[in-house]
Amino acid sequence: MNISEKLDKLRSCMKKKGIDVYYIPTNDYHNSEYVGDFFKCREYISGFTGSAGTVVVTDREAGLWTDGRYFIQAENQLKDTGITLYKNGLEGVPSIKQFITDKMRSDEEGGEKKSKVLGFDGRCVSFTWAADMKESIAGVNGRIVSDVDLVGDIWDERPVLKSEPVMCLDVKYAGEGREDKIKKLREYMKSKRADYHVLTSLDDIAWLLNIRGNDIHCNPVVMSYLVAGMNEIIIFADESAFNEDVKNELAGVGVRFREYNEIYDFVGKFKKGSRVMLDKGIVNYAVIEAIPEDVDVINEVNPTMKWKAVKNKTEVANERAAHIKDGVAVTKFIYWLKKNVGKIPMTEISVSEKLEEIRSKGEHYVGPSFDTIAGYAEHGAIVHYSATKDTDAEIKPDNFLLVDTGGHYLEGTTDITRTIMLGEATDEQKKYYTSVLRGNLNLCAAHFKYGCSGVALDYIARKPLWDMGCDFNHGTGHGVGYLLNVHEAPNAFRYRIIPLPGENEVLEEGMITSDEPGIYLEGKFGIRLENLILCVKKEKTEFGQFMGFEQLTFVPFDRDAIDISQMSEEERMLLNEYHKNVYDKIAGYLEEDEREWLGEQCKPM
Amino acid sequence: MNISEKLDKLRSCMKKKGIDVYYIPTNDYHNSEYVGDFFKCREYISGFTGSAGTVVVTDREAGLWTDGRYFIQAENQLKDTGITLYKNGLEGVPSIKQFITDKMRSDEEGGEKKSKVLGFDGRCVSFTWAADMKESIAGVNGRIVSDVDLVGDIWDERPVLKSEPVMCLDVKYAGEGREDKIKKLREYMKSKRADYHVLTSLDDIAWLLNIRGNDIHCNPVVMSYLVAGMNEIIIFADESAFNEDVKNELAGVGVRFREYNEIYDFVGKFKKGSRVMLDKGIVNYAVIEAIPEDVDVINEVNPTMKWKAVKNKTEVANERAAHIKDGVAVTKFIYWLKKNVGKIPMTEISVSEKLEEIRSKGEHYVGPSFDTIAGYAEHGAIVHYSATKDTDAEIKPDNFLLVDTGGHYLEGTTDITRTIMLGEATDEQKKYYTSVLRGNLNLCAAHFKYGCSGVALDYIARKPLWDMGCDFNHGTGHGVGYLLNVHEAPNAFRYRIIPLPGENEVLEEGMITSDEPGIYLEGKFGIRLENLILCVKKEKTEFGQFMGFEQLTFVPFDRDAIDISQMSEEERMLLNEYHKNVYDKIAGYLEEDEREWLGEQCKPM
Repeated sequence: MNISEKLDKLRSCMKKKGIDVYYIPTNDYHNSEYVGDFFKCREYISGFTGSAGTVVVTDREAGLWTDGRYFIQAENQLKDTGITLYKNGLEGVPSIKQFITDKMRSDEEGGEKKSKVLGFDGRCVSFTWAADMKESIAGVNGRIVSDVDLVGDIWDERPVLKSEPVMCLDVKYAGEGREDKIKKLREYMKSKRADYHVLTSLDDIAWLLNIRGNDIHCNPVVMSYLVAGMNEIIIFADESAFNEDVKNELAGVGVRFREYNEIYDFVGKFKKGSRVMLDKGIVNYAVIEAIPEDVDVINEVNPTMKWKAVKNKTEVANERAAHIKDGVAVTKFIYWLKKNVGKIPMTEISVSEKLEEIRSKGEHYVGPSFDTIAGYAEHGAIVHYSATKDTDAEIKPDNFLLVDTGGHYLEGTTDITRTIMLGEATDEQKKYYTSVLRGNLNLCAAHFKYGCSGVALDYIARKPLWDMGCDFNHGTGHGVGYLLNVHEAPNAFRYRIIPLPGENEVLEEGMITSDEPGIYLEGKFGIRLENLILCVKKEKTEFGQFMGFEQLTFVPFDRDAIDISQMSEEERMLLNEYHKNVYDKIAGYLEEDEREWLGEQCKPM
Repeated sequence: MNISEKLDKLRSCMKKKGIDVYYIPTNDYHNSEYVGDFFKCREYISGFTGSAGTVVVTDREAGLWTDGRYFIQAENQLKDTGITLYKNGLEGVPSIKQFITDKMRSDEEGGEKKSKVLGFDGRCVSFTWAADMKESIAGVNGRIVSDVDLVGDIWDERPVLKSEPVMCLDVKYAGEGREDKIKKLREYMKSKRADYHVLTSLDDIAWLLNIRGNDIHCNPVVMSYLVAGMNEIIIFADESAFNEDVKNELAGVGVRFREYNEIYDFVGKFKKGSRVMLDKGIVNYAVIEAIPEDVDVINEVNPTMKWKAVKNKTEVANERAAHIKDGVAVTKFIYWLKKNVGKIPMTEISVSEKLEEIRSKGEHYVGPSFDTIAGYAEHGAIVHYSATKDTDAEIKPDNFLLVDTGGHYLEGTTDITRTIMLGEATDEQKKYYTSVLRGNLNLCAAHFKYGCSGVALDYIARKPLWDMGCDFNHGTGHGVGYLLNVHEAPNAFRYRIIPLPGENEVLEEGMITSDEPGIYLEGKFGIRLENLILCVKKEKTEFGQFMGFEQLTFVPFDRDAIDISQMSEEERMLLNEYHKNVYDKIAGYLEEDEREWLGEQCKPM
């Protein structure tokens, strides 16, 4: 079926069920950012493959909302589908809520108002979203139906739900045993007088139990729900994915198994008056709707979110080691690229495979933390570009190649972007590269009072670009998990405040965040420079505790694209110091020719 | 009665009413920052005169919580009162909520738990505060009693509630008629399907009706509550404060009068099923408790808060004019100071009176927007210092004098701080003065994408200080009303995000905010430099709308305290450009000798 045939089929299902507007988010049942193939309803119905997007279908219209990272890609993929692209956040673009509310206005029929129905799968939206939408459409006399999965109904060859083998993460990697984590959770529950805690975010469950799986591409999580009581932990998952050793370890801390889908039945049996702590912004609507009305639901940000983000000493030491291994791999890759470009055939896909080949030689390498983005020349301007057979560009000794890539190791997760000049840089290219580099270096060098969130520091990375009237349409940085999701809340660098609890957290010692400003010139090239940086304590004075960052990523920046005259004395020193550290940490793991080249790359400028 | 006698009396009232812990905030019934004398229960009971602070009394303990602006002052004023000072926000200091919750733990009496009672005047706290506290102390089996005013009960000569004459603000000053404002409010109410809007914040009421009063010292507001319906506006106030002309104007837009205290009775009669929009974070607990349970209360940030903050074109033009008048007055004052110091007797109080004398000659001057802070030498380090007869220091030709002052004019409200060097500046003094100046100038010069709140820009003002491990313990800037409160939400510069709706608003064209970094060295001196800055649109590029600021305040900085070698080339240009503007705008209004002096002050450095 092509897209418009699918939409026709969906519309006839909507008609049968009396649904006027149907809402199809990207989400799985766990509010995950990336989802397993089973859950890709939005991709199935629209053909848009980006990681973020929402489709809304009415009897006559269909729209897709996505953000700045995907504008160019979505425009291409939606061509001739009959689906309109709505660019989130741009002036004059209605929000999804505005659009839906508008479409839900009652028609007048023979003087009588007929109320309209909004349909969605209640497992794929958070309670907060559904409650807000319900309130909004009540204003136009609309109502919701949430126990439907219409895309699932028309999807003939829907992939099965994954349940890959589960492993335990040893405490020498995790740094804290699951027993201690559970104890801390129960103390927190006590402080909120909670009898139960319902946890449905997959990375929180993996962190709490020190388990890792492979149920979402590049996200080592286990498809599961969890309910913690004061004396028991129940995990709702496919038990067959856990071998005896893993099950024994979990049984040792009181974990019992139930079937994945039995969560709805289980929470439906909570006793009257019991108190259940959960995050209404994360737990899906269907789970919360299944809880009896006489149960007291306490809406709290999952405490595991912040505990997981603040890496312990073992995790920090491991991450440092992982980043050396990864830095060696990426440095070798850049050397190989620069040496061979124009001499042997290369494409975006082939160089990504080459990088994976080099990286996979690293000890304790588990796999990529996301699919490498290798965007050559104008493809670099597509922020979350992913080369396909059709787009796979030949790489020539000219222009920039942007490579955004990362790996999972038992010692942690990496994420790095380098933009590599493959020919002679023009003045324009140097101007932009140097601006992005200044933002990157200055952010990591920030010296700030305890109490700042990433919002308070984002300006530092954007200043060189904003001064020129330029900008990049994505966050400056995101938290990174430990052998977990490469995008992890609550730490981030961005200039807008997200008005949600648990967002905009204060930067704590031990948090790892990416530092990745960029610039994207459509049709020309894209530049992004990304290091992971660790939040550390600096001096304590009579004025308070000061904080800063430690570089974790060690791979040279491209001196062929730097215009040193644009940099202040302080910025020049930051660059030279960084390059000295790169050489000191990486050179020892290289072959002779690679080392010589790195020495040249890291010479003071 | 001295403080401990008052506390004894309060404790015996508590005992009679069965209250274990009594809570005394600074607030009036309207969540005002500054309050009329009638409401100064916290000051009466503790002797602490700062503008912010909270007292909690138990049978054996009494504590006062206040913020960094008042640490030194509170320490002095609480000496020998038996009241413990809790410095809000410092490490290891329990929050008020923690403290109260801890004191509310049930005692075991003969094996039985006796629940404890927290008392407060429900009119003096927001609904949000009370609901949160109720929830917190429920966890320790405590309960609340909110229909008491125990300090009022023991306060023999309590001042009367003020009701000063009310005036109408002409549309040539307000820029928008009350009819249009009410229309906009009703449209907003419709979008929320609200039948009524309960508005209790005094500056919002004054703004909406284009009236001004004088019921709080330096805050030209009218003691009142307001309920807006679709066809009527009811103001609950002392009608005798409104003359016939004012009453006729208000009647023209459908405003009717009720007695101030009748609000509680009125909201108690809202009909079943009606929808009432109000801000639970502002409206007091007693008002909301009085609303019948079968009424639908919609919790929304008051839309007038943001409308009021975004100054219209008329207001902006007027503010520019007010700031010229005010700049002339303060410039004359500084010249007079520098010329006469050491020659004629001067004290903190006498120079404040001199400034008021000069300022009051300005056309359309209404009065001070707050009591001038004139802090000489070490007094300058007390952030919100207010000289009393006991502390009033003699001013000598040496060290810094910090003057923070502002005026109300029909054309708007000003707020300026200058720190004036009266002798020869030491290297240390120059180092700190120059750092503060750099922060001030750089913040105003910020060039940023639309979407930033003040949190995203605060770092700019603090960077020169943070780089040295220094800081100042107050916000960098606050919104300023138009002939209204000198502190006005929701725009502000601060580095911490306040997790409340309506705080941390995006900076909009037309918002006026103060830019006032400082440094305070206890026992030595304080430096603060404050201008008001207007948010303006800059260029729109393919990357979006850029924003910046326009200086409103024009008074020279003190070149005697500037170490120009610490400033970057860009900062030097900002300083020289600012001084050129000061001269161009102010010189024409000065006497010959003043003008000559200003010319010297404003020469390029």
